[in-house]
Amino acid sequence: MRITVLAGGIGGARFTRGLLHHLRTAPIESHVTVIGNTGDDIRLFGLQICPDLDTVMYTLGGGISEERGWGREDETFAIKEELAAYGVQPDWFGLGDRDTATHLVRSQMLAAGYPLSAVTAALCDRWQPGVELLPMSDDRVETHVVVDGDEPGTRKAIHFQEWWVRHRAGIPAHDFVLVGRDDARPAPGVLEAISGADVVLLPPSNPVVSVGTILQVPGVRDAVRTTAAPVVGVSPIVGGAPVRGMADACLTAIGVKTSAAAVALHYGARTADGLLDGWLVHDESDADAVDELAAAGIETRAVPLLMTDLAATAAIAAAALHLAESVRR
Amino acid sequence: MRITVLAGGIGGARFTRGLLHHLRTAPIESHVTVIGNTGDDIRLFGLQICPDLDTVMYTLGGGISEERGWGREDETFAIKEELAAYGVQPDWFGLGDRDTATHLVRSQMLAAGYPLSAVTAALCDRWQPGVELLPMSDDRVETHVVVDGDEPGTRKAIHFQEWWVRHRAGIPAHDFVLVGRDDARPAPGVLEAISGADVVLLPPSNPVVSVGTILQVPGVRDAVRTTAAPVVGVSPIVGGAPVRGMADACLTAIGVKTSAAAVALHYGARTADGLLDGWLVHDESDADAVDELAAAGIETRAVPLLMTDLAATAAIAAAALHLAESVRR
Repeated sequence: MRITVLAGGIGGARFTRGLLHHLRTAPIESHVTVIGNTGDDIRLFGLQICPDLDTVMYTLGGGISEERGWGREDETFAIKEELAAYGVQPDWFGLGDRDTATHLVRSQMLAAGYPLSAVTAALCDRWQPGVELLPMSDDRVETHVVVDGDEPGTRKAIHFQEWWVRHRAGIPAHDFVLVGRDDARPAPGVLEAISGADVVLLPPSNPVVSVGTILQVPGVRDAVRTTAAPVVGVSPIVGGAPVRGMADACLTAIGVKTSAAAVALHYGARTADGLLDGWLVHDESDADAVDELAAAGIETRAVPLLMTDLAATAAIAAAALHLAESVRR
Repeated sequence: MRITVLAGGIGGARFTRGLLHHLRTAPIESHVTVIGNTGDDIRLFGLQICPDLDTVMYTLGGGISEERGWGREDETFAIKEELAAYGVQPDWFGLGDRDTATHLVRSQMLAAGYPLSAVTAALCDRWQPGVELLPMSDDRVETHVVVDGDEPGTRKAIHFQEWWVRHRAGIPAHDFVLVGRDDARPAPGVLEAISGADVVLLPPSNPVVSVGTILQVPGVRDAVRTTAAPVVGVSPIVGGAPVRGMADACLTAIGVKTSAAAVALHYGARTADGLLDGWLVHDESDADAVDELAAAGIETRAVPLLMTDLAATAAIAAAALHLAESVRR
């Protein structure tokens, strides 16, 4: 079974870890492709940093900091301290020492002319994540956030990381713009992984700046819309709030309510030119969305959606695959 | 008093620290310029690394590892471990995490078009070494070592750091070649610091691959030869062996005996178109060189030359300045 996951950072990575755990006990062989968001990528201190790809790679490869959810376990931050001591800006980015080695290898390979997809494959040679990890694009696409400018009545765009990490999504976002999007092409294998999949999964990643960004790469949304595979998503919103992260600030910016049903309707039903065949919501808080979404053409199941441990996460993945079978046309 | 020091790494840095300590108690104001060797520089992992400049900067700025003599105190080596885990070569270079921040700042400023001298000044803004630290050249000049090739009868050139760090100078060197030397110009201020000095000092740095390299930058040797200032050197050889480092291997390669007298004669007497007016040798082991060198035109004093602590090092610097006064023409 060919399963393709469109993933952002922590939520997508943890969901995929649960998926792999479930698949190890499943009776059929499967091949999982993860299409990773690279809109969060940022070039800092001469290093090309791909936070979401690294979170997927480290989480599935056993190198992630479980506590933080991003970056490496046993991490130190000497370089960050030293750069601050030199007065180098920005000083708000969480640059770990172990992590920096990854950035150095990546940056040097990119400088040598390798595309990001080849670099990612080379890095995964070490981490053996158990999935084929593809960046959404080999081209540089960066999410910038439109916020109020310093002068009243003006607006400015800042890098997503500045908004997310420095401001903790705490200043109102008017919009998200993908710099480089129009010239970007999907990385080799991305469209094929969607069109040739047996199941496409949208994990509980940020629907705006993670999955939403991947979908904006030219050709990707169409590929999801037209694939023969069932497309099933897992709500990142539980009880009207993100399980983790600040998806509410992102949803608000694009005028979508922070609810499990609103996110599903934002993705849309495939029967109405949208993306979703199926959708999972949290059973304790969002079961009332099941009927509403069914009426809109999205088969919805209410199951426990908190990824509290690997077993619970595997159960969510199993429920997603089960729902995919029941909506397969 | 304008004092100019031609320095390599550990020996030159420690000597200069003693010099500054001495000058703090001296009755006259002074300005110390250190012309640093950049022949050891190496580009690794996309980072431009200047070991000797950093050793001077860290030693005088209070950031050096006293135990190792190079790199930072409280250093960790997570990046080095991680690069090795990725299988990245070379794996023998001692890349510290704190140190890497310096390399990142430097590499990024160089990539932005700043010359190394400006980068060095910017880094020294933090470290406040108490000297004006000038790279010998803003141009890339790298010492390579001619060694036996893999096939019998052949020779190859390897980077100095590979010979020094990886092989610990343990494979015979046939010669040292300075890649880029012919096109190199002295960095701004270098020739002026020599010609306009009141005293020029050659600290107990490696006479071949440190001081010898600086002297090979076009114009530098002539500037030392023709400056009105007295030129006084401190022997890096004590009792027929280097006090530290592997200068013996370097001297052997260029056919110079590993002795305090032989190094002085290698630099040569200014009266015979060489560089030295004065020379300090170690009193307990090398006093017999005093008369021999005097006969060759180099005023020589035998004093304790072991830089065991700051006071002992300051006394060596004081002796060098004292000798400079006595040979001033």
